[in-house]
Amino acid sequence: MDQTRIPTPIAPPSPDVAARAQERLAGLATPAGALGRIGELGAWLAAAQGEVPPRPLTDVRLVVLAGDHGVAAHGVSAYPATVTEAMVRTIVAGRAGVSALAREHGVAVSVLDIAVDADLSDLPAEVGARKVRRGSGAIHLTDALTRNEAERSLALGAEVARELVDDGAQLLMTGDLGIGNTTPAAALVAAALGLPADEVTGRGTGIDDDGWTRKRDVVAAALARTAGRTSDPVELLAALGSADLAATVGFLVEASTLGVPVVLDGLMSVACAVVAEAMAPGAAAWWVAGHRSTEPAQAHALKSLGLEPLLDVGMRLGEGSGAVAALPMLRSGIAVLRDVALLSEVLPS
Amino acid sequence: MDQTRIPTPIAPPSPDVAARAQERLAGLATPAGALGRIGELGAWLAAAQGEVPPRPLTDVRLVVLAGDHGVAAHGVSAYPATVTEAMVRTIVAGRAGVSALAREHGVAVSVLDIAVDADLSDLPAEVGARKVRRGSGAIHLTDALTRNEAERSLALGAEVARELVDDGAQLLMTGDLGIGNTTPAAALVAAALGLPADEVTGRGTGIDDDGWTRKRDVVAAALARTAGRTSDPVELLAALGSADLAATVGFLVEASTLGVPVVLDGLMSVACAVVAEAMAPGAAAWWVAGHRSTEPAQAHALKSLGLEPLLDVGMRLGEGSGAVAALPMLRSGIAVLRDVALLSEVLPS
Repeated sequence: MDQTRIPTPIAPPSPDVAARAQERLAGLATPAGALGRIGELGAWLAAAQGEVPPRPLTDVRLVVLAGDHGVAAHGVSAYPATVTEAMVRTIVAGRAGVSALAREHGVAVSVLDIAVDADLSDLPAEVGARKVRRGSGAIHLTDALTRNEAERSLALGAEVARELVDDGAQLLMTGDLGIGNTTPAAALVAAALGLPADEVTGRGTGIDDDGWTRKRDVVAAALARTAGRTSDPVELLAALGSADLAATVGFLVEASTLGVPVVLDGLMSVACAVVAEAMAPGAAAWWVAGHRSTEPAQAHALKSLGLEPLLDVGMRLGEGSGAVAALPMLRSGIAVLRDVALLSEVLPS
Repeated sequence: MDQTRIPTPIAPPSPDVAARAQERLAGLATPAGALGRIGELGAWLAAAQGEVPPRPLTDVRLVVLAGDHGVAAHGVSAYPATVTEAMVRTIVAGRAGVSALAREHGVAVSVLDIAVDADLSDLPAEVGARKVRRGSGAIHLTDALTRNEAERSLALGAEVARELVDDGAQLLMTGDLGIGNTTPAAALVAAALGLPADEVTGRGTGIDDDGWTRKRDVVAAALARTAGRTSDPVELLAALGSADLAATVGFLVEASTLGVPVVLDGLMSVACAVVAEAMAPGAAAWWVAGHRSTEPAQAHALKSLGLEPLLDVGMRLGEGSGAVAALPMLRSGIAVLRDVALLSEVLPS
């Protein structure tokens, strides 16, 4: 049996509604184009919702998909892997960076232990209900996942998106959590876009020069180990990804399939978006890039998707924080399309 | 009597509180620097408020200072001057671009007719209570204002800021409204920074190539007409500014004197900030730049003030809209300093 997935094309937001939204935007009591991307965001959300003007965003959900990574034991991160568990607990307690931002901007956050290398069974059952394994493999030495685990992770990510949409979510975001995760994410971008390790390796949470060199070497070794196997997205995720990243890919594909817009975050989110676009060509039409992180692989991935980030303020926290920080710009876009007078109403007659 | 004002130095936000805020920021359960400018904004607001963590921003005020400009009759704008009056009425009605954004982001907007060339006496009394004149002079032909009018405008802008602060405002913004106003604003920047007309002239609300050339020629003629007279800020405002712009300068100086932070907007706001900094050196420490507009003079002015804008999304609406759109980033900064756990609280012991 041929296990290679046939890419499933995704239809974009309604071109008819997009045209009506642009017409409304052009008729507002503002000079043509004066609202810049704020106006474009409003028009995009109208098309995504199928309605002009778009409805206010009252139900926005962020899912933080947490997992550990074998590479963390090999000197690629400024922090020990035990921090992953601590930060899952901090998000559950509502006291992480993204918790504060989400409360400020009206986003409901949930965290899922997809592959944390710790026993989190004392946390609420929903946190661990989708756990795939404890940690994913160290990608320079071994595959991150079996093919079956990659498929399961994709399926559970899709299921999570579907449940949120069924529950009324109007806009989705994914966040990442896991020490070492910029290493597999950079490797995914390198393999998907045919880039060398040098060009995708960044500083993550803040490694020094020696750490950067180790990380670059890990990425290079991982790419060499898996050369020729990564043109199929599922195989790519099994070879170089992780359970949490595969789940993120599944989430992104499903959101686009269901026609629900997504705000992407930093490197992990955008690396997964590149893989999701390969699995479901056209899916990117449902995404907006929240922010430009400091990771070079994110810049490559954004470019390949044709996405220009809304914010560029040096954030590199992960957790979905850059997506949440950008949300008010989407709300601005909706507000202008809903509430600004038409030029025809205000001009002197 | 020498009418030249002696520049009044402004003390920056408390260095002690700034240091305590940076210490708190560094201790949060996030990698060092991972919050980027969001964290820096929180620390800056803490210093401005004199309190760590900073208080939430529950009282933010935007004043739109409206006026007409003689140059508008000389083909420098894509719109006729009658639009100024119409837009004042639209803001009073709460239906302008900035009205929608301000409602979305919790900003109280007032509009003042400083020099609109229309009879607006049917509007609520406070709108016209500070009117200086009907329109300011066409700066390529004549001074915008008498020196006395420039002084009065500066004083009334200061008075407006003082009243808002006395009334509890925690954060201030200024907005501009007036067809043709990018011409005097560009001339102010050119004169203050010693730049030629070519480098400061932009497209405003959207003029074509012929309009741009006319506008550039107006700016060049105004600079030539007033050469040698504009080193004194009050003289500069009288020669090349307008009543609404002079009032904006007075507002900005007073806000800094009172120790209240300001979010700057587009070209008019930042051009006035350059003049305000000349009158009150150090005032810029109390300002953050909300957004980068599409006007080249704004980029020069921001650079001279050492300010890097928070947003860069192609907005050129005026009305204070770019400042309002950036406000959620300040709220994000406050939220992280207030609500994120300390690393010492969450790390495995």
